[in-house]
Amino acid sequence: MAGPATPLAIVAGSGALPRRLAEARAEAGLPYLVVCFAAAEPWMAVHPVEIHRFERPGVFFRALKRQGVTHVVMAGETLRPKLSLLRLDLYGLTRLPAALAQLRRGDDALLRWVEGLFRQQGFTVIAPEVVLGEALRLGAGPLGRRGPSGADLADAARAAAIVRALGPLDVGQGAVVARGLCLGIEAAEGTDLMLARIAALPAERRAAAPPPCGILFKAPKPAQDRRFDMPAIGPATVRGALAAGLAGIVVAADGALCPERDEMREAADRAGLFVYGATPDELAGGR
Amino acid sequence: MAGPATPLAIVAGSGALPRRLAEARAEAGLPYLVVCFAAAEPWMAVHPVEIHRFERPGVFFRALKRQGVTHVVMAGETLRPKLSLLRLDLYGLTRLPAALAQLRRGDDALLRWVEGLFRQQGFTVIAPEVVLGEALRLGAGPLGRRGPSGADLADAARAAAIVRALGPLDVGQGAVVARGLCLGIEAAEGTDLMLARIAALPAERRAAAPPPCGILFKAPKPAQDRRFDMPAIGPATVRGALAAGLAGIVVAADGALCPERDEMREAADRAGLFVYGATPDELAGGR
Repeated sequence: MAGPATPLAIVAGSGALPRRLAEARAEAGLPYLVVCFAAAEPWMAVHPVEIHRFERPGVFFRALKRQGVTHVVMAGETLRPKLSLLRLDLYGLTRLPAALAQLRRGDDALLRWVEGLFRQQGFTVIAPEVVLGEALRLGAGPLGRRGPSGADLADAARAAAIVRALGPLDVGQGAVVARGLCLGIEAAEGTDLMLARIAALPAERRAAAPPPCGILFKAPKPAQDRRFDMPAIGPATVRGALAAGLAGIVVAADGALCPERDEMREAADRAGLFVYGATPDELAGGR
Repeated sequence: MAGPATPLAIVAGSGALPRRLAEARAEAGLPYLVVCFAAAEPWMAVHPVEIHRFERPGVFFRALKRQGVTHVVMAGETLRPKLSLLRLDLYGLTRLPAALAQLRRGDDALLRWVEGLFRQQGFTVIAPEVVLGEALRLGAGPLGRRGPSGADLADAARAAAIVRALGPLDVGQGAVVARGLCLGIEAAEGTDLMLARIAALPAERRAAAPPPCGILFKAPKPAQDRRFDMPAIGPATVRGALAAGLAGIVVAADGALCPERDEMREAADRAGLFVYGATPDELAGGR
């Protein structure tokens, strides 16, 4: 189990996930190619890698076909802002202002459009789990030694309600709630920057919910295509949550990827934070 | 027109609004008293002022009654975080854990509860407009020389949809959208800090919407009591929007207070930004 037997292109943003994908393919002896649209990262040195330019999608697609690539997996957290350049560079190539307007809307619309490009070119876009297995997802229950209190789960349910309300608008893959007080809602800044600003929040802004308390909640948006846009968490998320004075991290069970599960468990236990996959029942009724 | 003929207590947070209220009462020769729960600010020196402590609500209410106060107006942007201390200090005094749970929910619930306290004590809580007139609100149309483009209004409609979606959850009095991309949603941090972090957003996070473009949108939450929790904007909001690389500020017409209208108009014209009150029709259909 490491995905298709035919060549796989790993379109790699940064973060642990693309590396894990490349290693899994290498270990299984299956053909693959790491593609990046930025400078190559050090870990890529031991893998077959190609650097491409968004400005030249024709060159990119021809290169994949020449190498017999049949499947594509898109992975990596900072892939999205890089991809957002793509729509600008292709602007002159397309005759579809309506589609471009869609692209401006949010990450989902953009990624769905990119997926459509791959599909039109005959490639099949697969989810990272097809290569790394279902264990890549964080399931129900605690990851480490600790778990959330009832108050923490109430905060998670409220955060889930906030994320749900925003979902149809293609915004908000996460929120931070502490004792009912919403400390942050994730927009274009991303999870790490949201946590950083909560760490910098003046004390009186969270007077009713002083640290350590509160949770970071992450879930896929309803419109998200789980093949290429699942939220990913890892040890860095634990460090960010700790700095933000939170008690833990809650994700919708099976709704987040955790490519560095062991490292994240250790980081959470060391920090005294919980990382928890909450069931739909546990997340219901938040207001 | 400067409000009731009987003594008015101006419960003053910071910002221009409490000062404007005190000046209007003084100019009209009507009785008033500025109450603050923090250190007195310099402008208060020429007004009758009392400093009170949240920890001693009994003393506070008795002092108001002793001076014949019949009406109360709550004003000032940073009043809310200060008020949040109140619920902690009163925790031991109340037997209503359910009500306290409500308080933790958000500003609206808290302010409604504070308003209820005043009401129980026989005071009437009035809106700042009762003293300063309807012109305090920003009506429909542009404040200064500039107005929004069609794309700016489309951004405002999307921001309005985001704020509307969050309203029932008592979160989100504002959002920033640039060419469809949601750059920020206001939670506990407040407008100024939201704008500051957008100013600090890495360029690639808004690659599709490089400055200057985008709008700050402000509107009352549906649950907000317009007597004491209208969003307020002023010259500082213009400076924040300018630093955040936005093209302008849009508010729901009649849905925001502007105690320093002339200064704000001048600041906007100087900065080349628009400040615009949008009608419900202009804000409809955002997605």
